[in-house]
Amino acid sequence: MNKKIALIGGTGPEGKGLAKRLAITGNQIFIGSRKQERGKEIAEELTNELNEYPQICIKGGDNREMAELSEIIIIVVPYSAHKNTLMQIENELEGKIVIDAVVPMEFQKGPRSIEVEAGSATEEAAQILENSTVIGAFHNLSAEILMDLKKDVIGDVLITGNNKEAKQEVSSLAEEIGSIRAVDAGPLRNSKHVENLTVLLIGINGRYKAHSSIIITDIN
Amino acid sequence: MNKKIALIGGTGPEGKGLAKRLAITGNQIFIGSRKQERGKEIAEELTNELNEYPQICIKGGDNREMAELSEIIIIVVPYSAHKNTLMQIENELEGKIVIDAVVPMEFQKGPRSIEVEAGSATEEAAQILENSTVIGAFHNLSAEILMDLKKDVIGDVLITGNNKEAKQEVSSLAEEIGSIRAVDAGPLRNSKHVENLTVLLIGINGRYKAHSSIIITDIN
Repeated sequence: MNKKIALIGGTGPEGKGLAKRLAITGNQIFIGSRKQERGKEIAEELTNELNEYPQICIKGGDNREMAELSEIIIIVVPYSAHKNTLMQIENELEGKIVIDAVVPMEFQKGPRSIEVEAGSATEEAAQILENSTVIGAFHNLSAEILMDLKKDVIGDVLITGNNKEAKQEVSSLAEEIGSIRAVDAGPLRNSKHVENLTVLLIGINGRYKAHSSIIITDIN
Repeated sequence: MNKKIALIGGTGPEGKGLAKRLAITGNQIFIGSRKQERGKEIAEELTNELNEYPQICIKGGDNREMAELSEIIIIVVPYSAHKNTLMQIENELEGKIVIDAVVPMEFQKGPRSIEVEAGSATEEAAQILENSTVIGAFHNLSAEILMDLKKDVIGDVLITGNNKEAKQEVSSLAEEIGSIRAVDAGPLRNSKHVENLTVLLIGINGRYKAHSSIIITDIN
């Protein structure tokens, strides 16, 4: 596509990985950070890394600024910063598609899910962002594999949401990346199950020394 | 293997499917039901269906009786009967491996998970069955595909539990079936995520007209 896409909290591995993958397919990328300088720094780093792709365009700045410049916003902050970040940039997200990729989890003798009052991070986002269309996606992909462009990205991206057109748009976006297949995982209320699947996968990664993801069988 | 395996609540599709698959690989199967007659009836039905396998041995009766005769017990009751059934047969399960395959869910405009105080059905079983070794497994397989012996069973069985040897034994048992691969999904506290994955899969089955299961990528 040729979309303007912000990655809010995009300076971590997940954000950087998605930024690279979505930049090389022709989208304009905006790396948001709490600190403007940090956003710029990572945008420059990624631009240098991708110097063999002359068409790529990655800018960086603070979260609010980057959200404002974009049409589609992907939230990849740690869960601890989820609520506050969304409240800070609520206005800049109005009328836009917001993709929540945040997994409420912590490490305490291994990965564990964190209970969210709204049910899931994605539903929490939908509660805060009354004037945006919130979709859950990109929870179950390995950041390491996203970042390593020599590797194909194999796996299904489970999409949750209550708006059909927005789900369709997010599905198309997801399928630009590697060999990803988008799968409709139902309404927003299913988001917690998709988020928690990542807790399982991270545990499996530890036990199997893997960068796992999932594939749903028997659908095409 | 050549194990004595009871299916508690084994008269439904999941129980019948597992019974058929585990019978043809050489295990002795005991179909348990609330009603002795119903257990016997299903055992007879399955025996007739499998008449091309002369070695199979499937018996039926009430849950308690079947549990007593078996070394490994698989719980496949509906969640509404989970607690009561386990309390009724607690003594018969002592010192044995109990595999919980129950998914706490209901249909209310589509599939939804049911909150379980213990965290998951499997942890609830572990609380009730203090003197058994409770393992979570077999949640994410399609009953329809299990029942149809003309079809291969493709997918990963996610195994949760706190006892290594028991997990290993359940893994071996699972891998007797079709092309199943057993995957260590971590300690008992992860069970709810495995159980809830079924809520996603059942939704996907409806949307995609499929009998879906999952495969974890990047592990072997």
